[in-house]
Amino acid sequence: MTIQSKFSGLGTDAAPGQEVRQLAGGIEPLLRGDAIPGRPVDFSHGDVDAFTPTPGSFEVFSAGVEAGGKQAYTEYRGDFGIREQLAGRLAGFTGAPVDASDGLIITPGTQGALFLAVAATVSRGDKVAIVQPDYFANRKLVEFCEGEMLPVRMDYATTEGRSGLDLGQLEGAFRSGAKVFLFSNPNNPAGVVYSREEIEAIVALASRYDVTVIVDQLYARLLYSGVDYTHLRAQKLDAEKIVTIMGPSKTESLSGYRLGVAFGSREIIARMEKLQAIVSLRAGGYSQAVLRTWFDEPAGWMDQRIRQHQAIRDDLLKVFRAISGLQVRTTEAGSYIFPALPRLSVRGGDFVRILRLQAGVIVTPGTEFSPFAENSVRLNFSQDHAAAVAACERLVALVDRYRA
Amino acid sequence: MTIQSKFSGLGTDAAPGQEVRQLAGGIEPLLRGDAIPGRPVDFSHGDVDAFTPTPGSFEVFSAGVEAGGKQAYTEYRGDFGIREQLAGRLAGFTGAPVDASDGLIITPGTQGALFLAVAATVSRGDKVAIVQPDYFANRKLVEFCEGEMLPVRMDYATTEGRSGLDLGQLEGAFRSGAKVFLFSNPNNPAGVVYSREEIEAIVALASRYDVTVIVDQLYARLLYSGVDYTHLRAQKLDAEKIVTIMGPSKTESLSGYRLGVAFGSREIIARMEKLQAIVSLRAGGYSQAVLRTWFDEPAGWMDQRIRQHQAIRDDLLKVFRAISGLQVRTTEAGSYIFPALPRLSVRGGDFVRILRLQAGVIVTPGTEFSPFAENSVRLNFSQDHAAAVAACERLVALVDRYRA
Repeated sequence: MTIQSKFSGLGTDAAPGQEVRQLAGGIEPLLRGDAIPGRPVDFSHGDVDAFTPTPGSFEVFSAGVEAGGKQAYTEYRGDFGIREQLAGRLAGFTGAPVDASDGLIITPGTQGALFLAVAATVSRGDKVAIVQPDYFANRKLVEFCEGEMLPVRMDYATTEGRSGLDLGQLEGAFRSGAKVFLFSNPNNPAGVVYSREEIEAIVALASRYDVTVIVDQLYARLLYSGVDYTHLRAQKLDAEKIVTIMGPSKTESLSGYRLGVAFGSREIIARMEKLQAIVSLRAGGYSQAVLRTWFDEPAGWMDQRIRQHQAIRDDLLKVFRAISGLQVRTTEAGSYIFPALPRLSVRGGDFVRILRLQAGVIVTPGTEFSPFAENSVRLNFSQDHAAAVAACERLVALVDRYRA
Repeated sequence: MTIQSKFSGLGTDAAPGQEVRQLAGGIEPLLRGDAIPGRPVDFSHGDVDAFTPTPGSFEVFSAGVEAGGKQAYTEYRGDFGIREQLAGRLAGFTGAPVDASDGLIITPGTQGALFLAVAATVSRGDKVAIVQPDYFANRKLVEFCEGEMLPVRMDYATTEGRSGLDLGQLEGAFRSGAKVFLFSNPNNPAGVVYSREEIEAIVALASRYDVTVIVDQLYARLLYSGVDYTHLRAQKLDAEKIVTIMGPSKTESLSGYRLGVAFGSREIIARMEKLQAIVSLRAGGYSQAVLRTWFDEPAGWMDQRIRQHQAIRDDLLKVFRAISGLQVRTTEAGSYIFPALPRLSVRGGDFVRILRLQAGVIVTPGTEFSPFAENSVRLNFSQDHAAAVAACERLVALVDRYRA
């Protein structure tokens, strides 16, 4: 394989956050009508100006700089004192023990944790079960490691109270020799949470077929009312076969510090650290200090953040459900919403570019998450409430304008 | 290849900074005499408490946090405004143009830049020329990418005014099909600078054999008096075949922010960004702001930093040259010194552990850098001056104690 062919599948042309590198050329002949004025909203990621970082996070960072060398240079897997603090909190949150010494690694962002976890478990030719739709990098990580992706469909749109993962397909993938199952819960982009029954079924299948499970729980703290969350690592599965990934990111608006953690299997985390040594050495030395605020927010702060997001979610659902032919499932956790648009006269990717041009609205095309989601778009609604609602009103106005 | 065998070559058991994970077990029977008291010195990396970060760096970081979303979320390759500033400064420093838009990427540390550059140029089976000795991760990066390493010896010990790279071996490696040549200049660990003639010879050979060159110039700013530095990228070689790596790190004591840059070939940097998207997404958003201080230090600040390091170097050389049988070349740039110890009664790796135990001195074993450097140790002398000298006196005392 040439390096060119290896990278041809790793396109970032439609990746969230890269819109500035995406040219609008050739779209003019498709345009109908004028632009709709309004405050631009970039739904490709959360707005840390609308939802500000955890109180005290900057002060803790400053104390890290003040501490100097011992905070700048840590073990590759992160400062031990911080790992000790986190281990206790993460054990409490997930309901299963975390080994601070050997069972946890701090990484540059949760993206760093995902990369290391996949690259430490998947080698050339290994089969990996991947959900469709799921986080856009999952597929690319498998491709980069030259693994073979076994897709598993999730019918999130028409189910209630569960994710809609096709457990038959999952067993098929495991029976075909999948060595690793990688998935996000809550699901990114669909915003749905796996039911207890689904998690138990995954655990039973992984156990039966000896599959390693990497679960990305980045948004597991931002749960809306009435939603029950089941931590996979607290179920009956060999702890050495599970890696859980989290990080203080969108929920806490700490993404500017680029921090993630992976915890679980000691053997896999040992390999992840070996790889981190040559990939990035360690997470930012001073930034690591910010983790001291994580799971230690002021009383009521997280509850309020959840309430505010739930209120935005509810208003966006009203906007989306007011027009015909648009399908959208209620987000159960996290700040993503993934409406399926009605049939349009332009291709999905073109509509995304038109939205940017005529409505000042940036969304991520569904095809980043699944080949079957061409008519869906992902929005991160961790935004200024009023601006987000107005932007979605422009979005549905353009949907109407471009209907097939 | 199983994942276990793939990772078996990526050991960090003797890697700098990981000493806390290295057990001292089994060494007691080898010990002679008592410990030598003294302030412990960790020569595995520079001491940012002894040499503090660039003035104003924390203020610039704070302004980045204050700026909020637009600093937290940047293009994966980094904020464009910062890239523009850097492009001008790096062009001035290296003597060849830098394309801010397409020819530069900001990474998590220079380690991140190295990983991306190698993974964006080396695929399975590709041959890569690697210098011995050179930065310990270079070999591991090639192994991770499943490339084939073609070693090229550098006889730094017995040469003057040049690195001592074996140009015959380099041509041999190129003739054998090396696709990439990866090296550090100044050399880490030997602290030597490639002469103009050597750089010109490398350029001529790379051009003749169509080899891509990745040059790690991390320490190129910390040049001691009388040393001439030749930037490879300013020579007559297709600019698309060169990637240069630098970063504000030890020299500026900014390593706690984890920042690196790679610049040069647009095609390779485009691939590096695609890979960064799945490896770590981007360098720390707020940390990127610190780059605004880079190459813009207060007048005289860098000169003073160089003088201070040169003074430490000179004193360490006196300590090392006072004992018989120890060979050491004068460091020309950077803050590494790489003495070859006389024949000892214990193995090199054991002596490193003895040093830690009996002298409170942490050094990195030479075998991390070359299989032929078992009797060498690397020290980063960016330390408190008096403490560094005293620690080296303890080191030579133990050399005498353990002579064969």
